[in-house]
Amino acid sequence: MLGCGNVGAALVQLVASQRDAIAARTGLTLEVTKVAVRNVSRQRDVTLADGVLTRDSAAVVNDPDVDIVVEVIGGIEPARELILDALKNGKPVVTANKELLANIGAELFAAADAAGLDLLFEAAVAGGIPLIRPLRESLRGEPISRVIGIVNGTTNYILTKMSDEGADYADALAEAQRLGYAERDPTADVEGFDAGAKAAIIASIAFGVRVVAGDVYHEGISNVSAFDIAVARRLGYVIKLLAICECDEASGEVAVRVHPAMVPVAHPLASVRDSYNAVFIEGRAVGSLMFFGRGAGGMPTASAVLGDLIDAAVNLRSGAHGTIGTLARARIRPIDETSAEYCVTLDVSDRPGVLHAVTGVFAGHGVSIRAAEQEGLGDDARLVFITHVAREADVQATMRELRELDVVKRVGGILRVIGS
Amino acid sequence: MLGCGNVGAALVQLVASQRDAIAARTGLTLEVTKVAVRNVSRQRDVTLADGVLTRDSAAVVNDPDVDIVVEVIGGIEPARELILDALKNGKPVVTANKELLANIGAELFAAADAAGLDLLFEAAVAGGIPLIRPLRESLRGEPISRVIGIVNGTTNYILTKMSDEGADYADALAEAQRLGYAERDPTADVEGFDAGAKAAIIASIAFGVRVVAGDVYHEGISNVSAFDIAVARRLGYVIKLLAICECDEASGEVAVRVHPAMVPVAHPLASVRDSYNAVFIEGRAVGSLMFFGRGAGGMPTASAVLGDLIDAAVNLRSGAHGTIGTLARARIRPIDETSAEYCVTLDVSDRPGVLHAVTGVFAGHGVSIRAAEQEGLGDDARLVFITHVAREADVQATMRELRELDVVKRVGGILRVIGS
Repeated sequence: MLGCGNVGAALVQLVASQRDAIAARTGLTLEVTKVAVRNVSRQRDVTLADGVLTRDSAAVVNDPDVDIVVEVIGGIEPARELILDALKNGKPVVTANKELLANIGAELFAAADAAGLDLLFEAAVAGGIPLIRPLRESLRGEPISRVIGIVNGTTNYILTKMSDEGADYADALAEAQRLGYAERDPTADVEGFDAGAKAAIIASIAFGVRVVAGDVYHEGISNVSAFDIAVARRLGYVIKLLAICECDEASGEVAVRVHPAMVPVAHPLASVRDSYNAVFIEGRAVGSLMFFGRGAGGMPTASAVLGDLIDAAVNLRSGAHGTIGTLARARIRPIDETSAEYCVTLDVSDRPGVLHAVTGVFAGHGVSIRAAEQEGLGDDARLVFITHVAREADVQATMRELRELDVVKRVGGILRVIGS
Repeated sequence: MLGCGNVGAALVQLVASQRDAIAARTGLTLEVTKVAVRNVSRQRDVTLADGVLTRDSAAVVNDPDVDIVVEVIGGIEPARELILDALKNGKPVVTANKELLANIGAELFAAADAAGLDLLFEAAVAGGIPLIRPLRESLRGEPISRVIGIVNGTTNYILTKMSDEGADYADALAEAQRLGYAERDPTADVEGFDAGAKAAIIASIAFGVRVVAGDVYHEGISNVSAFDIAVARRLGYVIKLLAICECDEASGEVAVRVHPAMVPVAHPLASVRDSYNAVFIEGRAVGSLMFFGRGAGGMPTASAVLGDLIDAAVNLRSGAHGTIGTLARARIRPIDETSAEYCVTLDVSDRPGVLHAVTGVFAGHGVSIRAAEQEGLGDDARLVFITHVAREADVQATMRELRELDVVKRVGGILRVIGS
């Protein structure tokens, strides 16, 4: 094992408690023989035999007595170099490292294939939920058109609080931090970086195409207001931070993005609450599928690592190994070329002709309005529009032009709407 | 292919439409070379090359040019003999046959292991939902304590109609039959036989223990009334037909049963509507997981078969094969020894002392009441009780004694309650 934090410590416990059950089912006995950590004297929740803990991670990946390497350090370096060395030394690798896979996954997959070894990473996306294996294996022949995931537990917790209690974003974030669901610096979660990395991995595996974190458009939830949530609820939606991966059948182009979106209350994703994760898959043969569970936490994540570890051990014994094949190159469709329904909120002067002027801007960009409502705000009025399916570029051009209208006081958030 | 009904025809189409995508990902080209059917002249939805259709199923499993056999005939014989012959001839087998697996699964698994070949059956349970592979592989090391499934689409459709429209069972069934969701003879679905077979397979794989259809206690939905559904709704529950598989960690005993149950509206299973299926898994490390999707239909089921088919082909090329290992023998805990909360409805005379007499019977059997409500029915009253967790045997003894009380006019259905 490389690293022994939250997930690593849980894995050590799980391997010990499940040793006999695993041996009975597979004939294999797992033993944690080396654990490389930066600080060997730190207090840990696990008991390890003498000589297991070491500061020398290179020695672990070079140790001829080590059969399989589990990487739970995180980050790009030294994880990358250690994994490549392990593969060079004939050791299959199990990793939970989303950052690494979302940035240099293709390099690692190629190295594993060249070595004829497993590189498994179920735990890197959606924690304990079996998602990568079903995508890699069960759905290998399925024509998947879209994957929509709630893959960040922190933001789902915050949005659930806002929705249940009418709380503001800042208050819900503060509570999430108090409870340990959000980090002191919450940027990676709340601005969608974490979900973006996971989206890149999901798109790569679901479509067999090379997608990296930098290809993923992302918006976070820090601009979602209590008003947005109330409007969504009145219209029959909940707001969720979604990772959306689409593959166009005809062109083979993919679009991958992370942003808050309005989800119809009857959609299975709408009832995914608190810090739970879920991934909704649309396939042309299989129809709709959803996988739901704990997206984070030591034990759930260790459970996913353990499943991979057993698989790697079984494969090592038989000389087999899995592969996701070579990832194809496909054009990544920029956000401007994607389409959705949009919900737009505008504060305007409450004067004759304003609605006419505003709707004229929509019409001028070919954005068709499906529903509208207006409420008074003293001398102003707040307008909420829901559009028919429109192109992002046209909606953004509409917003730019609206911002320049004298009668428009404020252009609120624009929220994309997921069809039912 | 053995058989070419709904699923078989969909598979032929899917293999053709996905041929290039599968070849690009795996380097393997799938070709349907032989299809054995009873009636070769029947009109089918698929186009097959000359010479592919045959009436001679034995010739298919003996054909040296056939690499993999897909069995979609259903039923025990001749499917059993054909599968065993295929394995003897060195051909891995993919089957969608729940009846076969729920009755003689252990024999087939042993034959596949002896031959060193894959026997894959994702499509046998929950149609297109990847469930068997995650259980077999991803969760091989997970200490699973309970699996609760909505695994019969017909009954879920009927219960959804009853719940949405206040319809009676008979009317909802008639509509399901009109729409093709229920068979003309609906017994296998509505009395829980179909779900029972699937529960046996799920328990076998989840716990690594030998469970056959005959081990599964089952009650159907034909006694669920519009009143039961209304009571459940008022108390915050929906009624679902559940397949419940439990494994006691300490004793290793398993309990497997199918019956209608009250599910709290906030539980993820409660929002599984219409003919959708879902399987909820509770593991001591991973926490709660749910898999949701289409449990039946030609294309969704063919999607599951295709995933297995590609896996079998990849394994055949590399000389590897999967195994679920030898199923252990465990005591199957009879329904009398299981525990749950119960919801009981009684019609009684509306006289002084009746509630006292009735509650005395509960108390006499050690069944503790958590909630009670009473409504008038002319000279009678209807009582609804919800118990604390109680043993089935004690609840049944309570019901028997209640039926003998003069003041009790009718003992309605007893519905078990799934904890939140």
